[in-house]
Amino acid sequence: MPAETGEQALIARIRERLPTSPEWVRVGIGDDAAVVEAERSTFEVLTTDTLVEGIHWDPRFCSPADVGHKSLTVNLSDLAAMGAKPRAALLSLSLPSSWTRDTVDGFTEGFAAAAREHGVAVVGGNITATRGPAVINVTLTGSVRPRRALLRSGARAGDALYVTGSVGAALAGLLWLQDHPSPGEPADPGLAECVRRYRRPVPRVRIGSLFGRNRAASACMDLSDGLADAVRQVAEASGTGARIIGEQLPIPPAAREVFEARGKDPILSAAAGGDDYELLLAVPPRKKRAAEALQRLSRGVPLTLIGEVTGDGRTVLVRGGQVEEIPQGFSHF
Amino acid sequence: MPAETGEQALIARIRERLPTSPEWVRVGIGDDAAVVEAERSTFEVLTTDTLVEGIHWDPRFCSPADVGHKSLTVNLSDLAAMGAKPRAALLSLSLPSSWTRDTVDGFTEGFAAAAREHGVAVVGGNITATRGPAVINVTLTGSVRPRRALLRSGARAGDALYVTGSVGAALAGLLWLQDHPSPGEPADPGLAECVRRYRRPVPRVRIGSLFGRNRAASACMDLSDGLADAVRQVAEASGTGARIIGEQLPIPPAAREVFEARGKDPILSAAAGGDDYELLLAVPPRKKRAAEALQRLSRGVPLTLIGEVTGDGRTVLVRGGQVEEIPQGFSHF
Repeated sequence: MPAETGEQALIARIRERLPTSPEWVRVGIGDDAAVVEAERSTFEVLTTDTLVEGIHWDPRFCSPADVGHKSLTVNLSDLAAMGAKPRAALLSLSLPSSWTRDTVDGFTEGFAAAAREHGVAVVGGNITATRGPAVINVTLTGSVRPRRALLRSGARAGDALYVTGSVGAALAGLLWLQDHPSPGEPADPGLAECVRRYRRPVPRVRIGSLFGRNRAASACMDLSDGLADAVRQVAEASGTGARIIGEQLPIPPAAREVFEARGKDPILSAAAGGDDYELLLAVPPRKKRAAEALQRLSRGVPLTLIGEVTGDGRTVLVRGGQVEEIPQGFSHF
Repeated sequence: MPAETGEQALIARIRERLPTSPEWVRVGIGDDAAVVEAERSTFEVLTTDTLVEGIHWDPRFCSPADVGHKSLTVNLSDLAAMGAKPRAALLSLSLPSSWTRDTVDGFTEGFAAAAREHGVAVVGGNITATRGPAVINVTLTGSVRPRRALLRSGARAGDALYVTGSVGAALAGLLWLQDHPSPGEPADPGLAECVRRYRRPVPRVRIGSLFGRNRAASACMDLSDGLADAVRQVAEASGTGARIIGEQLPIPPAAREVFEARGKDPILSAAAGGDDYELLLAVPPRKKRAAEALQRLSRGVPLTLIGEVTGDGRTVLVRGGQVEEIPQGFSHF
């Protein structure tokens, strides 16, 4: 908690930097609770996520604005994975005295930018002091039409598995930053893009929502804990297996180089690496054309076929004709 | 984060101790986000609150179950202050390695008990590790009929000010516990009740909802940061003043003794003390009878007339005929 300012002053400061709330927010920040009007004929989607300083970000190479942006983005990614449209956010900050007013301003700038990009109304929150590292908690609500939510559990044997964007970029960016702990960016454009994917992930809200509305996917999950983890979780929730083809993973060349330079296997690294806020989508055979049509609407977000759902209960990675168990996903523990 | 168990195992452990979800929870814990069906013809109410170990509770005299109970209760109190009915909660835990599996089980027991008492469905959450103190964040949703929400801003000069229950009990309980830092309770029943009010506050959900549904209050706020703070905030939001009569504050005799034994002024202490999860209600003259009728429905929760809303913009405390400024509320900073 910045020493020079109390809770009320800090709330006022954050509030004036946030986007104006739409009319469906009947009571916003400043009362005991917020009051919002639901969207007609929709279900509500609710998610929450926490970032802890020193665990989820390193202040040597993530700016307060990066953290603010990411704290909302990780929740936007969860809504994207449900095919939901984001609506309202609540922001809870537990701040140590090392956070100055400038740190809070920087954080708010990044948070507000992500809120504006996705039309999210910030309707409430909480600020408290802590003697430990900063802890940022964001809860996000969204809406989805009945029977249009994308669950983890709907995959069936024979469905194709697609992934949006690329995999491994965020981990490669993180590895580079850990070796170059500063606010800067690498000169190489491919590597710089990896670093940006780590610092400012782009949630796949539009493509998730398109797949949900058009019922073009039987299951979906985001890759926050890595592709391997997502594949295993979707298979487990669906009571199926899955087979991923290593050579088909969309690993950016710059990420591949980062892994190779460190003696790491590029495919295993990309599959196990966390912080890729991409979507894993299971697409039934009869929806293949619909999925291809949706990709054309997705504003250039690549959609890559990486494998299929199987009936044997195993989650495997195939490469060079060899079959191996899918590696463990990323874990903070 | 308990060392002996990973995130997934811990989530499963917590989950099996929580109440079963009602049918309107379409997707609960275990997917990227929860999906809930809204209640017809209502607005949604959203609130969030955070408890930090060492700041909001002292583990020497608050058990993990107390903390679990309180982490939901403080949010229930915010909904009560809006006249809203609680529905769904999300629980985010940032846990240090000092939290063993038993600590988490104790916490969950208290949290689940509060959820059961108030019919709250726990639909999601998050667990992460931290190197600092434990941070517990709870987000709670509720429902309120249009034009039935109790805001802070509706008070008008001439409205009577009431408070539910008692004031000062929680602070007195805390003061006693700070002098006797153990899990025990004092032998004196009045003092033991103060300690219980601190450890396990009772949110005034029923009486808040009754006042909202019957439009019997023009403004309402909970006393989480103390009566003085609530009076000032309601007056400020309403563009009014307020006058509180010191002798009328419902201070329990045991609390009065605690303050006096420590050389503190009982009225100022009770007014400034935080952690009383009671409600401050402004009642227009024409609603006085309705308010009295509601009190009879409120299952024995006392409702005490403590002052009135004024038009002069000042918030004052009157006692022994002397007028003084209302003391500053409790602050964690």
